[in-house]
Amino acid sequence: MGRALELALGGPRTGVNPQVGCVLLSPSGEVLAEGRHEGAGSPHAEVAALAALTAARGPEAAHGATAVVTLEPCDHHGRTGPCSTVLIEAGVARVVFAVHDPGVLSGGGAERMSVAGIDVVPGVGAAEVETAIRPWLTAARNGRPFVTVKWAQSLDGRAAAADGSSHWITGSAARADVHRRRADADVVLAGIGTVLADDPELTARDGERLLAHQPAPVVLGRREVPPAARLRAHPVPLRRFDGRDLRAVLDSLWDDGVRSVFVEGGPTVASAFLAAGLADEVLVYLAPTLIGGPRLALNDLGVATISDQRRLAVDEVVPLGDDLLVVAHPAHPDFLSPLEPHHPTRIALKE
Amino acid sequence: MGRALELALGGPRTGVNPQVGCVLLSPSGEVLAEGRHEGAGSPHAEVAALAALTAARGPEAAHGATAVVTLEPCDHHGRTGPCSTVLIEAGVARVVFAVHDPGVLSGGGAERMSVAGIDVVPGVGAAEVETAIRPWLTAARNGRPFVTVKWAQSLDGRAAAADGSSHWITGSAARADVHRRRADADVVLAGIGTVLADDPELTARDGERLLAHQPAPVVLGRREVPPAARLRAHPVPLRRFDGRDLRAVLDSLWDDGVRSVFVEGGPTVASAFLAAGLADEVLVYLAPTLIGGPRLALNDLGVATISDQRRLAVDEVVPLGDDLLVVAHPAHPDFLSPLEPHHPTRIALKE
Repeated sequence: MGRALELALGGPRTGVNPQVGCVLLSPSGEVLAEGRHEGAGSPHAEVAALAALTAARGPEAAHGATAVVTLEPCDHHGRTGPCSTVLIEAGVARVVFAVHDPGVLSGGGAERMSVAGIDVVPGVGAAEVETAIRPWLTAARNGRPFVTVKWAQSLDGRAAAADGSSHWITGSAARADVHRRRADADVVLAGIGTVLADDPELTARDGERLLAHQPAPVVLGRREVPPAARLRAHPVPLRRFDGRDLRAVLDSLWDDGVRSVFVEGGPTVASAFLAAGLADEVLVYLAPTLIGGPRLALNDLGVATISDQRRLAVDEVVPLGDDLLVVAHPAHPDFLSPLEPHHPTRIALKE
Repeated sequence: MGRALELALGGPRTGVNPQVGCVLLSPSGEVLAEGRHEGAGSPHAEVAALAALTAARGPEAAHGATAVVTLEPCDHHGRTGPCSTVLIEAGVARVVFAVHDPGVLSGGGAERMSVAGIDVVPGVGAAEVETAIRPWLTAARNGRPFVTVKWAQSLDGRAAAADGSSHWITGSAARADVHRRRADADVVLAGIGTVLADDPELTARDGERLLAHQPAPVVLGRREVPPAARLRAHPVPLRRFDGRDLRAVLDSLWDDGVRSVFVEGGPTVASAFLAAGLADEVLVYLAPTLIGGPRLALNDLGVATISDQRRLAVDEVVPLGDDLLVVAHPAHPDFLSPLEPHHPTRIALKE
């Protein structure tokens, strides 16, 4: 399963489909073939591995084999037929997988294979795989994109000095980390206030160089994006929403195939996503500095009394130069918990 | 020097005098005797070690010996005469010490001993000793008490929810840590607003049990402390200041022998000390929670633009249960730097 996960993580991290890896083993444990899913439109990992095996050793080569897959083989009728059926027809004897497919349309492969007489072993290496593809799994379970809310602040929670100046609170290592994480998202989202105040590019860069994957820019709010805004030069066309209904924004993005949204567009937008319980992960870049005054990194979150505080579970604290990155996810029951299935819904692998 | 520092740290941590340790060695490196300073009114470490040696081996026993001391032997004429003279008269051949005595009255021992023909070696183990007795050294160099400003906050810099409720933002491990650190201070200082709002005891406790050393309570502000305030049961009598001139408050405490002040009395007082550049150390207890809203842990610090931000140098980040403690000191030139001699002034060991 370790090797299957390695294969999975070599595939593209963004878009509709999950990262999946598959290793085919002979009854004696010899590796027969490997496969990974390369994104929407490409064969699934199991199909890729079986194709590699039969090309090398003929159509009977998978008889009695074991398939080790990171995600439950799909049961979804797309262009190539469900993976469950493909594995059954190939004569595979045993299927070991880590995590159940949370999709309503694509799930159910385990049951079909079991009925067909395959020895199905779920849950092997589940914790590692859950962690590795958590954004995709969370999105699939919630039926909306995985939302990361990111902000940078002084230790005392300020985003800028009294006059609005904020270049720079965090250092270059923290800023580079933001760009790397942006590149892992389908969408980068900002509020119009931040666009007007800071004129951000909203690209993912290494210095001046654009990284290979660029998140699509989304701006919330009713005011116009100026024609000269740097954002207009973004390689991916801009999408606009008025931002009054954040869940509707996420639903619309979901329907367009967006599975992860990186929210970094200023205190108003960050606070709105947090207040609405629509944050699956928070990234707080903490600079070792005190600023005081009125320019807060977060505004109101609707917390009237202390029992309503939005508790977080800290996943890691990462030193970045002089700064600290706190990676956390909501622990409060009012937040959607990222590892619990809340809304298993209309997810399906796009073939 | 390691052993001398061990001895030093076994002495009392609070009050006017520093923690000092001394080891006497024979010319061949044999340990002849040890001594430590047990606080104001007790013999200095060198005198204690020499007394132990002569009691055991006679008045000539220190002839040709080496004295290893954490702090430069004093040159201050008190009840027992300066340590420099005592070492000269005992016939010590060599004095090794870590850190110069920053006191105007007590400093100068190294020069006197050198003139008398003793081989004087300063600076050995200086970094370790500087760190170990930093509060005392900083106080001596600045001519005012060492000021620790402590506050607890949510990750987004709030001290309470909108209705003022704050029990509890941080967990029990963080609160226990506060009590231990309070017990290391001469004074614990709060604003009258916090006293009226929270009715704190301002004692250092382990659960319900009072710790051995209790910091003296000091309250700033003009309003009355109510007769029924829990603070009134503090084992050390309360001192009051109107708090309009913080430097004057510190000067007054200094004159009473206070060398360390633990400021934890609410956003107004914490912000005032920080804004005035009168913080030598900050302790930020960060709880993994978001609160938003108007109840900030710090208010205005007089930072108009980002170049005025109060940069900190982080000494350590300590996990305490679910919370993080950030220990830092001011790195900004507008703050007094704790390891630079700014105001060498009227410090002297109290005999």
